[in-house]
Amino acid sequence: MSAYPFAAEFFSALAASGVRHVCISPGARSAPLAISASRDPGLDVSTHVDERSAAFFALGLSRATREPVVLVCTSGTAAANFLPAVVEAHHAHVPLIVLTADRPPELRDCGAGQTVDQTKLFGDAAHWFFEVDPNGCDERSLRIAAGLASRAVAESLGHARRGAGPVHLNWPLREPLEPRDPGDDAPALSIRGHVAVARPEAFPDEATVDSLAQLAARHEAGWIACGPADLTPREVDAVAALARATGWPIVADAASGLRSGPHVDSTPVVDAADVWLRDADLAADHGPDLVVRLGPTPVSKALRLQLEARPPAELVVVDPTGDWQDPSHLATRVVTADVAPLCERWTSAITEPRGTSGWTRRVLALDSRVREALEGALIADLGSLNEPAAVRALCASLPDDTILYVSNSMPIRHLEAFWPASSSRIRVLANRGANGIDGVTSSALGAAASGERVVLLTGDLAFLHDLGGLLAAIRHGLQATVVVLENNGGGIFSFLPVAAEPERSDFDQLFRVSHGLDLSHAADLFGARFERTRSSEVFRKALDSSLRAPGLSIIEVPIDRDASLAAFRSLMATGVREGGRA
Amino acid sequence: MSAYPFAAEFFSALAASGVRHVCISPGARSAPLAISASRDPGLDVSTHVDERSAAFFALGLSRATREPVVLVCTSGTAAANFLPAVVEAHHAHVPLIVLTADRPPELRDCGAGQTVDQTKLFGDAAHWFFEVDPNGCDERSLRIAAGLASRAVAESLGHARRGAGPVHLNWPLREPLEPRDPGDDAPALSIRGHVAVARPEAFPDEATVDSLAQLAARHEAGWIACGPADLTPREVDAVAALARATGWPIVADAASGLRSGPHVDSTPVVDAADVWLRDADLAADHGPDLVVRLGPTPVSKALRLQLEARPPAELVVVDPTGDWQDPSHLATRVVTADVAPLCERWTSAITEPRGTSGWTRRVLALDSRVREALEGALIADLGSLNEPAAVRALCASLPDDTILYVSNSMPIRHLEAFWPASSSRIRVLANRGANGIDGVTSSALGAAASGERVVLLTGDLAFLHDLGGLLAAIRHGLQATVVVLENNGGGIFSFLPVAAEPERSDFDQLFRVSHGLDLSHAADLFGARFERTRSSEVFRKALDSSLRAPGLSIIEVPIDRDASLAAFRSLMATGVREGGRA
Repeated sequence: MSAYPFAAEFFSALAASGVRHVCISPGARSAPLAISASRDPGLDVSTHVDERSAAFFALGLSRATREPVVLVCTSGTAAANFLPAVVEAHHAHVPLIVLTADRPPELRDCGAGQTVDQTKLFGDAAHWFFEVDPNGCDERSLRIAAGLASRAVAESLGHARRGAGPVHLNWPLREPLEPRDPGDDAPALSIRGHVAVARPEAFPDEATVDSLAQLAARHEAGWIACGPADLTPREVDAVAALARATGWPIVADAASGLRSGPHVDSTPVVDAADVWLRDADLAADHGPDLVVRLGPTPVSKALRLQLEARPPAELVVVDPTGDWQDPSHLATRVVTADVAPLCERWTSAITEPRGTSGWTRRVLALDSRVREALEGALIADLGSLNEPAAVRALCASLPDDTILYVSNSMPIRHLEAFWPASSSRIRVLANRGANGIDGVTSSALGAAASGERVVLLTGDLAFLHDLGGLLAAIRHGLQATVVVLENNGGGIFSFLPVAAEPERSDFDQLFRVSHGLDLSHAADLFGARFERTRSSEVFRKALDSSLRAPGLSIIEVPIDRDASLAAFRSLMATGVREGGRA
Repeated sequence: MSAYPFAAEFFSALAASGVRHVCISPGARSAPLAISASRDPGLDVSTHVDERSAAFFALGLSRATREPVVLVCTSGTAAANFLPAVVEAHHAHVPLIVLTADRPPELRDCGAGQTVDQTKLFGDAAHWFFEVDPNGCDERSLRIAAGLASRAVAESLGHARRGAGPVHLNWPLREPLEPRDPGDDAPALSIRGHVAVARPEAFPDEATVDSLAQLAARHEAGWIACGPADLTPREVDAVAALARATGWPIVADAASGLRSGPHVDSTPVVDAADVWLRDADLAADHGPDLVVRLGPTPVSKALRLQLEARPPAELVVVDPTGDWQDPSHLATRVVTADVAPLCERWTSAITEPRGTSGWTRRVLALDSRVREALEGALIADLGSLNEPAAVRALCASLPDDTILYVSNSMPIRHLEAFWPASSSRIRVLANRGANGIDGVTSSALGAAASGERVVLLTGDLAFLHDLGGLLAAIRHGLQATVVVLENNGGGIFSFLPVAAEPERSDFDQLFRVSHGLDLSHAADLFGARFERTRSSEVFRKALDSSLRAPGLSIIEVPIDRDASLAAFRSLMATGVREGGRA
């Protein structure tokens, strides 16, 4: 019995359910899936050598499009290579539909080649696992195929208290794997069906909304803090309206969706808290007694430490996905609801909007002084190019409707400190589910495959970790800019106390993965434009021209680790000092 | 409570239990493990950017040394990147001791950064999982640490009906992570203990040995078939002695350990079965009525198909690891025992050794005719360099005491067909647990880190899949030669029937991952010597000089896929035709 009719129906139903992109890593066992996907006129298929890169590519593409993306691979360790991106997708709530080809039962656990135990291979990181029986071709079987595809899409998109995430369908496939029967190429029967699935929104109950409205009336000194949630436009509008109604400023992560956008002009937004919260006095004088936390945990460690040092009387965690995002264990209330309906109802329940209060004006004034002091210091030191200067140049240069993909470790921390709020339409994405430095390049290139303009800000270790991921750019003709902050082996550990102790001769060996590579050869290998610059001016020009050039551009910014650390600390000190001059 | 005293004792006991190598991927959470490992004078520490490459590096190092190798990583997706190599190690029975740093319970499942569910992250692929409590520093705690390390080594080495494999110890670690207390640098107490563990050998029972001896007396037409087991010298001796006593030829996989070595001169060894078993008549005339299968399933598909077409009356599967290696479901007897004691007892129980019988002489004569015909055809076509010619050149050029690491997909199949048996001491290794093309370069470089001379034979897709793995060569000053059979996107699918159908325009897009890259840039990036050649003579010279050069050498052999396929089929036809001229 061939799997082709079932697979054709399955992919047809995926397309009908809103799926557009299928990322395939070639293999023989998965041929029925690959061939069936490629034949479906509603699906756009791309192929990828390395399954790990393929999975991060799919993740980035799903992030950019906010749609489920399908992954296909053959049996064996191929599937195991999906795990890092599946784990990230689980925690970041990215809908991936993972289809793994497998041997049928008679070839499992008996020494057959390329056969591993793929049952629940991704453990709890997969939100749904299903072992497919793809062998039928009658009408009932095809209904099963269509229903299965529809359900896979629905499960990947999630539901109340679960959120989106990866799902895993394992396909036992028998030889012959290539299409052989006439029915394989043109199935005798095709129902072209799918199940329309209505997704629920999670609304807060009336009693909760009343309580929240009372909180708003009771607390002047409130913050709305949002982590790297990449909120949708509707969510941004709802949060901004709540901020205006309560008078509480939004403490907006760079990757929250709230730091950039038209709402910034009319809404109180704090963008330098990561800087001035490093000072205990400023924090004590401007800290809130109520915090509303939306979605994922904020990036700022200073924010976390200050909240732990001076817990607010009320900490409301809005938790759309059931993740209980409260690593500091300070929550007084967890509200399971989607962000937009929660904020909309809360705003409606506020009968007397406070508007911007004196307390909020004081916080915003402090925040402005700090941001201006940082800006002034960066302008004064315009010649040299370090991480803060690179972030500033990106902010000044990127046109509207650009996706800025940011690597974990230092780049996102630098963005957090040095990315000013503005009305520009820049979308900041980062893999903040598990905060890994793996797969960052592939994620950014996947985002570029959506057709959006993409700039990646990354470090040299993340760049090397996913070096082979660059292959996707040349194979799929993607336009993208990769900015590599190159400090020859990672800078984050320089921030550890242990790094400052001169007797720790083992430190460099153990924590700085020095490599001494000339990254221009990577550009040569993958057919990319390459520029290396230590000058802010040249950097901006390179950035500008990369955005107009076809294909892949790599801009390397060599960073001196010690000078960079000193500059960072000097900027932090400047920000705190100027902030204190009220 | 610091984890340093516990970790120091743990690593000390690992060293006392025979561990020598620790492969570390840097991170902050894993600092207590990395620093403690690096301080132990008995341990050799290397660092690796990419955890996936690190894990395959450790796997190759463990393969080369036949010792457990330790892996250390930080929390999050870092650990997930170990899965491909852990799955391979599980199926290939390679002892890896995987130590993952984790957040402590209070930071789990509540939105803390870089925190994923690492409990049993590798599922059943880890032979043992243990959640460590590293917080004690009294004598009892240190005894626990020493016992835990000793047990981790024992579990990784396996026991009867389990075999060696990866084990996973998850370490919850609290801040501060760097050494801070005086006791962190010099523990007040250290017991320097470990538990000596006696590993059992799995012996066959008397009744089984009697039955096997009777089989030997009853069957003249027997084969001893051994898959890619990389047998130890003792095992090779035991199998060779059994072959001489029974008169049954050894049908030796290239990676079995039985095709090369001094025993070949005095033992009946068949090395071209993969060629002549493609012919049904030759197979029928020379096929066995009894087969003893040792360890993993043989690589040869022709062997599998012929046994399935004409099942032997007796198929004895010797199964040291409880894997029930019988994908064709032809076994009449499964004997759980280690290879050496089984073969030694079986040989001892044979009271009247048959010696080489007429039947065996006929098989060996056929095999010689085929091998000579292939050799003749390759010599006649000396100018052009294709995969068979490259294998032949390797066989002719590699000095004794070389490890030839072979990639999966086509390289190992070409080796299977074209690697002649000889008395040379070449050890052939391949990742035949799950037969993936991932991590092959890192595995070979890990083998090179053992101090052995290593040559890797790989394809361009495997090379690109693990491109970043090359970094280990330059960072750790490894000497190795990488031979890349470059056909711009993988040749194995050209062997599928579907590839021959001209109307399949989607075939190239879906199955041949064409890339058009110039691999010399990869050599430039990683500081490797590079040579590209289409000539057998130049290839041999490049190979010779690479073996004498320091550092990494990459030799690219451009392959025309269609010409290569034609040459392969022509050689197979020649082998069969000449073999039939009895």
